[in-house]
Amino acid sequence: MSDHKKPAPVAAPINDLLKHRWSPRAFGDRPVETEKLRSLFEAARWASSSYNAQPWSFIVATKDDPENYQKVLETFVEFNQGWAKNAPVVALSVASHKFPHNGEQNRHAFHDVGQAAANLALEATSLGLQIHQMAGIDPEKARKTFGVPETHEVVAGFAIGYPGDPASLSEQLQKGEMAPRERRPASSFVFTGHWGKVSPIVAK
Amino acid sequence: MSDHKKPAPVAAPINDLLKHRWSPRAFGDRPVETEKLRSLFEAARWASSSYNAQPWSFIVATKDDPENYQKVLETFVEFNQGWAKNAPVVALSVASHKFPHNGEQNRHAFHDVGQAAANLALEATSLGLQIHQMAGIDPEKARKTFGVPETHEVVAGFAIGYPGDPASLSEQLQKGEMAPRERRPASSFVFTGHWGKVSPIVAK
Repeated sequence: MSDHKKPAPVAAPINDLLKHRWSPRAFGDRPVETEKLRSLFEAARWASSSYNAQPWSFIVATKDDPENYQKVLETFVEFNQGWAKNAPVVALSVASHKFPHNGEQNRHAFHDVGQAAANLALEATSLGLQIHQMAGIDPEKARKTFGVPETHEVVAGFAIGYPGDPASLSEQLQKGEMAPRERRPASSFVFTGHWGKVSPIVAK
Repeated sequence: MSDHKKPAPVAAPINDLLKHRWSPRAFGDRPVETEKLRSLFEAARWASSSYNAQPWSFIVATKDDPENYQKVLETFVEFNQGWAKNAPVVALSVASHKFPHNGEQNRHAFHDVGQAAANLALEATSLGLQIHQMAGIDPEKARKTFGVPETHEVVAGFAIGYPGDPASLSEQLQKGEMAPRERRPASSFVFTGHWGKVSPIVAK
């Protein structure tokens, strides 16, 4: 089993945990210890959220529970099922659209589920695990499959496990697995005073 | 200057960085080094996003640029201005609602801005800084002030700086600053097989 690392080619120093998180598609067979999975959701739990509303929930299944594993896997789009089926753990995130304290719309529900997901992914990196998050899911199928109430919305999919050998992937996916990581430069998104005016913080 | 730490009272072990991030309101006067601010946005830059669309932007200002600092501060609701005005750096996050590759709606725009914000907050923790994120802003006022285009939406506010003395806060805010951190238990949001069915991963 290979452990293909792909640290971000950063333009300024960042913490190692943030640098080493990435989204591989090659997963090893090795099951994930329950204590480690518990730590992932504990990390999500301590994310910050608007009014501390904690709008996140997760639906998770491991391969030793094949029926529930399959139910989660089948909410992913076909392309994602193709590689995610090798991950020992699959999950979905769910957002609550209403504030518990007053029933009003929570504009930051997806935002705060994203914060919890980022925490979860970094805890995974910290434990030698890897996570691939997927926008490519069928949220309405997931709602029906799991009885998610109308007050909530299914957000994203997760494949979770130990690193695997990129050679286990199709030729096309191997290319993506080995390709350099890319992001637009900070000067394209950090502004001061007016939209589009590059902040001196990130200007060269 | 006090450095009031408030590690999460975790129910399962999590990485120290995740454990020590919290949202204080007491900020010290000490300005933040430009290199550290650059690292914060670099950390945000390497967040994961749907189709790698990177829908995040930031509008930032430091106290040594009083005009632009004031412009950001005044987009916060009054209550937040009251304490955030002591932070040496203030910022806003902005989400792009459209995918650059096809112009379609990005359902995960807020989610992925949340992931970038979580990265930024953890990088801050790593550098001895602290961040308080705010949902309490006036997004339309911010749009007008900074000329944010209609394709984008202003998401949240940030106060950024070094830790300060909780005694600098009003009595009411001091209470919040010293109060225990609280989250609902993982058993209330980690499910398997069906909505509401607690996953054995987090069951006691």
